[in-house]
Amino acid sequence: MGTRNLKLETQNSVSDKGWVRTVSLTPPSLQDNTADADRLESALKNKLHTDAVKMDIHLLKHLPDILRKWDYHVRCVLFKDRGQWLLAGITQAEDSRPVTGLAVDLGTSRVVLRLLDICTGQILGETAFDNPQITVGPDILARIHYADTEEGLARNNRLITDGLNREIVRLCDACNLETDDVYLISVAGNTAMTHLFMGLNPRWIIREPYIPVVNVPGVVKAEELGIQVNPLARILVFPNIGSYFGGDLIAGILFSGMNTAEDTAILVDVGTNAEVVLGNRSWLIACAGAAGPALEGGVTRMGMMAGPGVIDSIAIDPETYHFDIHTIDDMPPIGICGSGMIDLAAHIFLSGMVDIRGRLVPSLCGNRLKEKDGLRHLVVVPGKDSAAGHDLLISQADIDSLIRSKAAMFTILETIATSVGMSLSELSTFYVAGTFGSFINPKSAISIGMIPDLPIDCYKPLGNSSLGGATLALLSSECMEEINKIRDRITYLELNVNQEFMNKFSAAKFLPHTNTSLFSSVKVKSEKVES
Amino acid sequence: MGTRNLKLETQNSVSDKGWVRTVSLTPPSLQDNTADADRLESALKNKLHTDAVKMDIHLLKHLPDILRKWDYHVRCVLFKDRGQWLLAGITQAEDSRPVTGLAVDLGTSRVVLRLLDICTGQILGETAFDNPQITVGPDILARIHYADTEEGLARNNRLITDGLNREIVRLCDACNLETDDVYLISVAGNTAMTHLFMGLNPRWIIREPYIPVVNVPGVVKAEELGIQVNPLARILVFPNIGSYFGGDLIAGILFSGMNTAEDTAILVDVGTNAEVVLGNRSWLIACAGAAGPALEGGVTRMGMMAGPGVIDSIAIDPETYHFDIHTIDDMPPIGICGSGMIDLAAHIFLSGMVDIRGRLVPSLCGNRLKEKDGLRHLVVVPGKDSAAGHDLLISQADIDSLIRSKAAMFTILETIATSVGMSLSELSTFYVAGTFGSFINPKSAISIGMIPDLPIDCYKPLGNSSLGGATLALLSSECMEEINKIRDRITYLELNVNQEFMNKFSAAKFLPHTNTSLFSSVKVKSEKVES
Repeated sequence: MGTRNLKLETQNSVSDKGWVRTVSLTPPSLQDNTADADRLESALKNKLHTDAVKMDIHLLKHLPDILRKWDYHVRCVLFKDRGQWLLAGITQAEDSRPVTGLAVDLGTSRVVLRLLDICTGQILGETAFDNPQITVGPDILARIHYADTEEGLARNNRLITDGLNREIVRLCDACNLETDDVYLISVAGNTAMTHLFMGLNPRWIIREPYIPVVNVPGVVKAEELGIQVNPLARILVFPNIGSYFGGDLIAGILFSGMNTAEDTAILVDVGTNAEVVLGNRSWLIACAGAAGPALEGGVTRMGMMAGPGVIDSIAIDPETYHFDIHTIDDMPPIGICGSGMIDLAAHIFLSGMVDIRGRLVPSLCGNRLKEKDGLRHLVVVPGKDSAAGHDLLISQADIDSLIRSKAAMFTILETIATSVGMSLSELSTFYVAGTFGSFINPKSAISIGMIPDLPIDCYKPLGNSSLGGATLALLSSECMEEINKIRDRITYLELNVNQEFMNKFSAAKFLPHTNTSLFSSVKVKSEKVES
Repeated sequence: MGTRNLKLETQNSVSDKGWVRTVSLTPPSLQDNTADADRLESALKNKLHTDAVKMDIHLLKHLPDILRKWDYHVRCVLFKDRGQWLLAGITQAEDSRPVTGLAVDLGTSRVVLRLLDICTGQILGETAFDNPQITVGPDILARIHYADTEEGLARNNRLITDGLNREIVRLCDACNLETDDVYLISVAGNTAMTHLFMGLNPRWIIREPYIPVVNVPGVVKAEELGIQVNPLARILVFPNIGSYFGGDLIAGILFSGMNTAEDTAILVDVGTNAEVVLGNRSWLIACAGAAGPALEGGVTRMGMMAGPGVIDSIAIDPETYHFDIHTIDDMPPIGICGSGMIDLAAHIFLSGMVDIRGRLVPSLCGNRLKEKDGLRHLVVVPGKDSAAGHDLLISQADIDSLIRSKAAMFTILETIATSVGMSLSELSTFYVAGTFGSFINPKSAISIGMIPDLPIDCYKPLGNSSLGGATLALLSSECMEEINKIRDRITYLELNVNQEFMNKFSAAKFLPHTNTSLFSSVKVKSEKVES
C-alpha cells in the first residue's frame, strides 16, 4: 500500500538558483517503497512544477549508492531540452565544490571559454585560444570545402573538440577544479562553426539554397559530442536562423536585452561578417552584411589586429594639424587598427585634410602628403617616430575602401530601418557588439557617417556579446527559453542590392553623407573656413 | 524572408499507422531555407499535433544526404519518451523492407522474442531461449546476490544482452531481415530481470524496504543498453510498481484489456511467482503471491515441465475408476505436469478416491494404492505402461502440497476481492496468464476449489500475456501511454498473513472448500453415494 503517497520535504533551499535545486527526500520505508529514481524525480517535479524529469541510464547506475551515501539529501543540476527537464548532474547537498558551467564563444578565428559558478553567476575563469581549424583554412569557406569528405569533416571536428578539451582541462586546473565539476555547457557560434563542432556536414550551407543541417540543435550530451567533462553533462548549442545568421548573433540579442525592451534598438555585430538586428520586445528584423557584396572585404579588414604599438585612437588639432596619437600599451607606433582608422578618417575629414568625397586635399595635408606608386598617401607617423622604421602611411585607396565600407554599413542600417518604416533617428539604443565595437569611438564613426547621428549615450558597446549570451543561458531556464523565442521571432531580411540600395549607397559614400541634415552634429572645419 | 512559411504536404498517407508516418517535404528553396532537420521536424509536428520531435545527433549526421537521396519523401519511425516524441528511424518512403519491432518477454527462466511488422502488426517470427543468467543462478535471488559486485553485475548484464543480440541476429536471419530493420524494442520482465538487463544493481530490491533503482525507466537508446539493432533504435522498458510487481505483469494487464473494461475482472499470472490483479477501467488492485509465504514452493512447483510424454490431462471414470490419460505428443507417459496434477486431483476427489481433506481413501483406491517409505502413494500409471519403466506415483505428501497451494491461491483471490468489498462470484472475467494458464482445465481447478466457481466461459487463458503486452506497445502510442496509466492506477495490496488470512486459508484447505455453497457446480461422487 501507499506506493503513491510519496511525501516530500520540498522546502525551497537557499541554494535553489538557476539550474540548481537541492532536495531532501524522505528515505524509503515499507510504507513508501517508491524506487530511488522515481523518488528523486517526484521531488524535482514538485519543485519545478513539471510532469517529467528525464534521467539517463548512466545516472541510474550510480543513483542508489549516491542517495544512500548522501542520506537522500542532494543537489541536482538540471537542464532543459525542447521543453523537457533533464537531470545533468547530482552532488551531495552540502558539497563545497561549485557547480560550474562553461560558456563558449565558438568564433571562426578565436574561441573564448568562460567558466562560471552557475549558482552564484560568479565568473571563475576565462581563456581564449585560436580556433585550431585555422590549420585547415583561415576562413569558413575553406573549412567547409575541406569538410566535404568524411575524413575532412572528422578532422575539422576533431580539431575543435580536441582544442576545447585541452583548454577545458587548463581552465579547470587554473581554477583548482576538475573537468567533472562542469555540468552545463553552452556554445554560441556561427552556423558553419556550430555544424563542424557537432560533426555535421556544412556542405549545403554554401550551396544554393543554403540549407543548414539543423536550425535548432537543442541540448546534446557532452559525451556524444566528444567533450570530456562530467559524464552527465549536457551541451546547449545555440540555434541559427540560416546559413548567414548564427547562434552567436542570437546569443548577442539575448545579451543585449533588446528582445525584452519596449523601445526599438539596433544591434550591430562586426565580426567576420557584419550583422544587424533591429527591433524590440514585439518584433525583430535582421540582416547579415555578408549578403551585401558592397561590404565585402570591408569594415572588418580595415587596419591591422589590435596589439602593442598599434594606433587605436587619433585626434588632429584642426588649427595646428598636430596628430595626437595613442598606441596600445603606449609603445612606439607600428601600425593602425580599425578603431584608429575610423578616428583618423574622422579627423582628417573634420580638419579639412580630405574633402566630402574623401579626397586628400594637398593644400591642407602639407608635408604629410606623399606620392608613392602614383598614388597619394598621408603620413600618419613619420619614419623617425615609428617603430616600423619607416613612415606609417595610408593611401587614397585605403581611404576610398574605408568610405565604401562605412557607406555600406550606413546603407544597411538605413535599409533595415526603412523596411519597417522607421527612421534611424528614432532609435533608443545602438548596441555595438564584438571587440571592434568596444574600441570604436562613436563620435568618429558618426563624423564619417558610418553610424547614425544619435546622442553619444545611445551607443552601448557590448563586448563579446556571444559569450555574454552563452553565459546567460547557463544561469536560468527563463534565459534559455528566451533563445528559441528570439529565434522564432526574427524576420530575416534578405539584402536586395537593387537600384534603391545603390542610390542610398552612393549618397552614403560622401562624408558624412549627401544629406548633411542627417548628421547635424558633425561640424567640419572647411565649412567654418568657408563661412 | 519566409523562413517561417514552411509549406508541407502532410497528406495522411495510407502507411501512417501506429508509430510510422510517411512525410513528403517541400524541398528547400531560396524562399524557404529552413534546415533539413527542422523541415522534417515541422512536418512531423504537424502530423502528430505535438510541439517537439527529438532527433539525435547520429541521425542529424546522415539526414542531409538521406533527404536529398530520397527526394524529401521519407517514412519515419517514431516513439515516445515521457510524453516527448522522438525519431527512432527513417527510411525511404517507398521502401519495401518492413519496419520492424521486437517484443521481448524477459523471463527469469525463458526469454521470448517476437519480431513484428509495426505497420501491419503482422508477426514475422518468434523465438525463445533459456535465460543465459541461469549459469549464474537458476533463481532471481542467486542472480541478485551474484550482481552485488561490479563484475557480477556486469556479467549478469552481459549474459542477457549477449544472449539477446545472438538471438536477434538469428531471428532476423530467419525472417530474411537485417538487425538494422529493427527500430523499436519493448521489454517486459519482472523487476529484477529488468534491472539486470539495464545494468542496474538490484541489491536493494531484496533488502528491506525493498527499493528498486527505478520504477519507470521509460525509453532508452538500444545502443546505450548494448543491444545491436538499428543505430537509432529505442527500447521501451516496461515500468514496475516495486520489487514484487514487475513490468511483465503490467504488460499482462495491458494485454488483457481489463484496464479499459467497465466490468470488474481478475487476472492471475502463475509464473515464477503468482500475481493477482483485480479491477476495471476505474481502479486496479494487485498483490503478488510471493508475498504470501503459504504459496511458497507452491502452485508453480507442481509436477514437471511440459514436454513429450508428460501427462497434461487426466479423467477418471467415477463408475469404473478407469484412468483416461493424455500425454503430450501422445508418447508413452513419463511424468505429470501442473495441469495434469490439477486434473488428477480434481478427478480423484470427484470419484471419491480422496476425501474432502485430500486423504487417499483406501477402499476406493483399490490396487492403485501403495505404501512406500511409510507414505501412501497412488499409482497414476503402472510401470508396464510407463515410459519411465516404473510406476508413476503421486504421494499423499504431493497431494497435501497441492492442496496447500490451491488453498493459498484461493485465499489470495478471496483476500483481494474482500479488500474492495466484493465477492469473487461477481467477476465478469477471470484471465489466466502464462503457459500454465493456457493448459489448466478450469473445470478441474474449480473442482478442487483453486479458483472460484464461475461459469466456464468466464475463464480466458491469455497465453504469454507479458509478450502480448510488449507487442501492443509496439503498435500504437495509445497503448504505450496506457502502460504508465495502468502503473499509476494500481494500488498494491501487501498480503498480510494475519489470523483472518489463516482462517480463510484453513477453510480453503478442504476440497473444494468448507463452504460448499461457494462451489455449487462441484458434484462429488461420495456425496451421491451417501445421498
